Amino acid sequence: MRLAELSERSGVPTATIKYYLRERLLPPGRRVSATQAEYDEEHLRRLRLVRALIQVGRIPVAVARDVLAAVGDDSLDHHMRLGAAVWSIPHGPEPDEKDPATDRARRTADALLERLEWSFGRQTGAESPAYRMLVAGIATMSRLGYPCDVEQLLPYARSAAELGATDLDLVERYEDEEEQVEAAVALTVLYEPVLLSLRRLAQAEESYRRFG
Amino acid sequence: MRLAELSERSGVPTATIKYYLRERLLPPGRRVSATQAEYDEEHLRRLRLVRALIQVGRIPVAVARDVLAAVGDDSLDHHMRLGAAVWSIPHGPEPDEKDPATDRARRTADALLERLEWSFGRQTGAESPAYRMLVAGIATMSRLGYPCDVEQLLPYARSAAELGATDLDLVERYEDEEEQVEAAVALTVLYEPVLLSLRRLAQAEESYRRFG
Repeated sequence: MRLAELSERSGVPTATIKYYLRERLLPPGRRVSATQAEYDEEHLRRLRLVRALIQVGRIPVAVARDVLAAVGDDSLDHHMRLGAAVWSIPHGPEPDEKDPATDRARRTADALLERLEWSFGRQTGAESPAYRMLVAGIATMSRLGYPCDVEQLLPYARSAAELGATDLDLVERYEDEEEQVEAAVALTVLYEPVLLSLRRLAQAEESYRRFG
Repeated sequence: MRLAELSERSGVPTATIKYYLRERLLPPGRRVSATQAEYDEEHLRRLRLVRALIQVGRIPVAVARDVLAAVGDDSLDHHMRLGAAVWSIPHGPEPDEKDPATDRARRTADALLERLEWSFGRQTGAESPAYRMLVAGIATMSRLGYPCDVEQLLPYARSAAELGATDLDLVERYEDEEEQVEAAVALTVLYEPVLLSLRRLAQAEESYRRFG
């Protein structure tokens, strides 16, 4: 398809698509003349992913480029490629190493992973951005005087385990491996606001049942 | 306690506390002389909540003031006060009413609430900011070409229901009603990054199990 059709089918203005092409967020089309290029279904899919990262995830263009490089890196095996792609999505604030609450939070996070028998999480440990985000979150809570120990975190982690399985079920609906990696990245970002809104609706429901 | 002790126990600099007092995010202390005021445990608690909203939730001061007004509004019954306080925390992007995807998303959200038998959510419907955030999230997904129907949302909603119950269990550990409302607001905000990081760790774990 030509640029105009790509724009129509994706709902992304042609000027924006040209910008993404210049910024190498989209691979170039196949040249068919000096002024025209041909795009395919893969461009359409990639364009949707770029929109998810930039519009919903509010991820800067340079960071989105890193995420996409991981998506396209077929030198990795499938699990590592999925991991590398999700890994490179920004994860929020880093733990403050000068704060003693961070050390305590790290011990809590380690004890939690052990209790859950999350062996991959224990292997990658401090390397993983999701682990560092968890440590930062626990440290903030305890610094603010809200207790946050393993027992309190366990039910959240168990719900998260179900969510992780639901996410992977969705990802496995896609057929080829590259599509699966793209879907993993897009759905990680796109389901975050959906999940947080469902949690607030569920809180209201539960409060109504208990106190209403 | 004096301002210096309030600062030491909360870890918040005195200049910041004075700013919060001026902005009416903290109630004034009890005057003991022309230049000194006395603060109590309630100030300490309120200060923690203000930090949670502003530092973690990145909520603007004016909006934080509205949230705190709802926390302190004892004209409401307990369920309504909990709801009003969490309600007033910002919820992210609003649905785009000019987009036909928004209408379809609303029908999906309604069908989901019906399937879940969330009667409070169905009553409040379009009034509720969490419902509008859900509609916006579903619309974005379908606009980007990621299918998002009731069947696909149901497992996320079921995990969210568990999370809502876990949240309310935590809230009920606090004794008096005002403390419960404060905890509901703080824990809603503070657990968001923790939950998102746990979901990413769980995804990695599940991917390792399936493809590793």
